Amino acid sequence: MLQVGFIGLGIMGKPMALNLLRKGYSVTVHDISESKVAELVQAGASPGDCCAEIASRCDIIILMLPDGPDVEVAVLGSEGILEDANPGSVVVDMSSISPVISKKVGAACEVAGLDFLDAPVSGGQPRAADGTLAIMVGGKPHVFARVLPVLEALGSMVTLTGPIGAGNVTKLANQIMVACNIAAMGEALVLAARAGLDPAIVFHAVRGGLAGSNVLNAKAPMVLSRNFQPGFRISLHQKDLRNALSMAESMDVALPLTSLVQQALIVLTNQGKGNLDHSAIVMFTERMANLEVANALASV
Amino acid sequence: MLQVGFIGLGIMGKPMALNLLRKGYSVTVHDISESKVAELVQAGASPGDCCAEIASRCDIIILMLPDGPDVEVAVLGSEGILEDANPGSVVVDMSSISPVISKKVGAACEVAGLDFLDAPVSGGQPRAADGTLAIMVGGKPHVFARVLPVLEALGSMVTLTGPIGAGNVTKLANQIMVACNIAAMGEALVLAARAGLDPAIVFHAVRGGLAGSNVLNAKAPMVLSRNFQPGFRISLHQKDLRNALSMAESMDVALPLTSLVQQALIVLTNQGKGNLDHSAIVMFTERMANLEVANALASV
Repeated sequence: MLQVGFIGLGIMGKPMALNLLRKGYSVTVHDISESKVAELVQAGASPGDCCAEIASRCDIIILMLPDGPDVEVAVLGSEGILEDANPGSVVVDMSSISPVISKKVGAACEVAGLDFLDAPVSGGQPRAADGTLAIMVGGKPHVFARVLPVLEALGSMVTLTGPIGAGNVTKLANQIMVACNIAAMGEALVLAARAGLDPAIVFHAVRGGLAGSNVLNAKAPMVLSRNFQPGFRISLHQKDLRNALSMAESMDVALPLTSLVQQALIVLTNQGKGNLDHSAIVMFTERMANLEVANALASV
Repeated sequence: MLQVGFIGLGIMGKPMALNLLRKGYSVTVHDISESKVAELVQAGASPGDCCAEIASRCDIIILMLPDGPDVEVAVLGSEGILEDANPGSVVVDMSSISPVISKKVGAACEVAGLDFLDAPVSGGQPRAADGTLAIMVGGKPHVFARVLPVLEALGSMVTLTGPIGAGNVTKLANQIMVACNIAAMGEALVLAARAGLDPAIVFHAVRGGLAGSNVLNAKAPMVLSRNFQPGFRISLHQKDLRNALSMAESMDVALPLTSLVQQALIVLTNQGKGNLDHSAIVMFTERMANLEVANALASV
């Protein structure tokens, strides 16, 4: 029977591992938090003491970790996957990290006789729980085909986008558009609100036209109701844009809009807003204008 | 019988005036081009020699002109509307102009005993021809109610967004989001293409998620096929962002993303691209990276 390892049981990893159990997979789990491992064991998983132990027991080893350095430690470090993995097994890194690290870790896996996919996801905790994530995969087609049934237990839209690293490049492209679209919405709403308009009416007047977007539909209501419960945190989006800008620089690509929005994320994090939903990017424009769009009507 | 005047028979104005004729309105038209007037006369309109003559003969006077100074001349200038309008008639300015000029012209109309609405549109020539424009209106509710049947002959989504000027504020908010969303798409596609990914696959992988937008669906295919036939011209979007930035400055609002995209529009216009569709904003990022996203695969 196929043995699936799952390393990283955070906000995203835990519901994903639970979905694998529900679909009947034999799952061995590891996390630095013993209580999270215990929760999954109660749901039917086997515990693993370290990444190397997971690797020794599994055919497919999934990682869902915060950032690239965590992935490097889990794969390349002491008690890491490469210390005890079986040749022919597949490492599937579903963390959202720099494609540069994906390529480095993927190459090390291949030297050790393992296959590797980078497979970051989009959709957040609710879609992780539903098993309807969008999954953007980089790697070899035959490896993708082998892992596809497992990925389809986690997501409803699984796309092979290119070789190792391509999954994370696609995720960064996604995150660039999301962050900039939020920031643009902020500028539009601040202009309208300062001019005395009701931003809710402006939202409804423009959402059906070319300015309409999934960001506008999902995030304008959060801005108008001042509900910045994440969703997706400012601090994580800052990590993604840092990875995008670093990668772009390494390829001699300039991303002026992205770099500007990253400055907004840095300012907001410095002001203690790192744990708010990324829709709070609009606060950057609001603060420069000394105005909150939701309260603008009262102040006009 | 209600007499409708229509001043400005350009790419947008001509199909709009034709729609009014089709719906059975009695329409008197004026344009600086005599041949355009002749076309409309052939379709059933009456000709007017100047704006003042249109005003003297009409209850509702619609303007569809390129920019604010044109509207000032048509209303306030020699042989302008105010020279010969009948008290109680309504001036409906459907041009996309600065809200500052809307307020100035609207105030002058009210002093002369006329009502005024600013009612810019979104949707471009195809929706002007279909009579399915989005129309964003500023003015008094009872004036809006009086003109609404005429506006509904031109558009399928007509929204009163606030007092005089609010229509153009809403249009500027719309144009900010459209321009920034296009620019963000450009940065995302350039990053992905330079990294060796097929931008068409990236487009399909992300369009269903939070990065999805009407801009992405409408404009990514144009970028990938290098079809920059307007649509909506770079030069007109530059005018809109100029008006947005000027208005924002007058209200002590800073719009850093908008100002950055405006620099891209200025550069492209200086390079002779002003008549291309605004999806060509991506060329700004492409040129900085010395890459075309559609040809990137060949060059990797």
